Amino acid sequence: MAAWGQRLAGVRGVLLDVSGVLFDGAEGSGVPIAGSVEAVARLKRSRLKVRFCTNESQKSLGDLVRLLQQLGFDISEGEVTAPAPATCLILKERGLRPYLLIHDGIRSEFDQIDTSNPNCVVIADAGESFSYQNMNKAFQVLMELENPVLISLGKGRYYKETSGLMLDVGAYVKALEYACGIEAEVVGKPSPEYFKSALQEMGLEAHQFV
Amino acid sequence: MAAWGQRLAGVRGVLLDVSGVLFDGAEGSGVPIAGSVEAVARLKRSRLKVRFCTNESQKSLGDLVRLLQQLGFDISEGEVTAPAPATCLILKERGLRPYLLIHDGIRSEFDQIDTSNPNCVVIADAGESFSYQNMNKAFQVLMELENPVLISLGKGRYYKETSGLMLDVGAYVKALEYACGIEAEVVGKPSPEYFKSALQEMGLEAHQFV
Repeated sequence: MAAWGQRLAGVRGVLLDVSGVLFDGAEGSGVPIAGSVEAVARLKRSRLKVRFCTNESQKSLGDLVRLLQQLGFDISEGEVTAPAPATCLILKERGLRPYLLIHDGIRSEFDQIDTSNPNCVVIADAGESFSYQNMNKAFQVLMELENPVLISLGKGRYYKETSGLMLDVGAYVKALEYACGIEAEVVGKPSPEYFKSALQEMGLEAHQFV
Repeated sequence: MAAWGQRLAGVRGVLLDVSGVLFDGAEGSGVPIAGSVEAVARLKRSRLKVRFCTNESQKSLGDLVRLLQQLGFDISEGEVTAPAPATCLILKERGLRPYLLIHDGIRSEFDQIDTSNPNCVVIADAGESFSYQNMNKAFQVLMELENPVLISLGKGRYYKETSGLMLDVGAYVKALEYACGIEAEVVGKPSPEYFKSALQEMGLEAHQFV
């Protein structure tokens, strides 16, 4: 306990994972993990800053927060770092117009993004939308670019649903990387830039959070 | 010419590629490459053994040979090394029952193969059959095996059709390799075993062919 006390002495913030830590979910629903609703409530009553950091890429931020609120969590959109909004910032900053190989559930996040005449590809856990036709379109867009840019929301190998293991976006990223001879830029955990952006939003340095 | 003469002195056989060398094809059709019909005819009139070696995996061997015959080539099924029949030999030898992630055009090649209760995955250029559902099924089969076996018919990154560049099987192989943490066994060019099997069928050693 002393060691923990020392380690936590300078801590001013807590970054919380969401799916698999706060709740276990199937598509569109979920159950809170035992004790997690009260744990979040206690953290928020403490002197610590609290922020949520997720790789969720099948639900919009609004839908995710509404689900968590329904499950009893004290949470608002402004407290969550999610890959789709983070990607939109990058696209705007760099003048990128994506071909979107994404799940319909997060398409609304990109409503304000110009997708005409694409000069990059954004890939996320698209589920059933990972058709050959859509993958081939993404491949063709990349092959026509002088400097192909592939931005990936996360790089997970697979995840678990009640129906079994499911292929995640990372597998399809590897497919495009191999076909085009390129390397994707990952927005989402475990990318250090992604954690850094979450900390910036808390106004903290790396040594001040757990 | 002297150098070529020396190099060819011990040559007793010629191994010919098919697609892109004998003919350029779109789905289901093709045109002979200039001079190739006559070149094959001349080789067959020479003292050299001639064999054809293809990675074709969207057409059955019978359909491929019929197409080549229609284009004017002197060719028969017994003169062609193709990955689907080679794979069937491997499956039988090793008692493997595949989940087939393949194009409908070559499904008939596997008619004599037991596909119940799969203990391996065979992947080929499946085209539109590379749906998320089919990829996920292949992934789940592999993840449930103690020693996952993934056999790939070729490992091409992409190929050219009249409509443009098309993602090839290699990209989808990389996806499954990454998701499952395994490495595929390649049946087809450029696998040395594949060339060796073509040579065995000619009764030649590696130094006796070009």
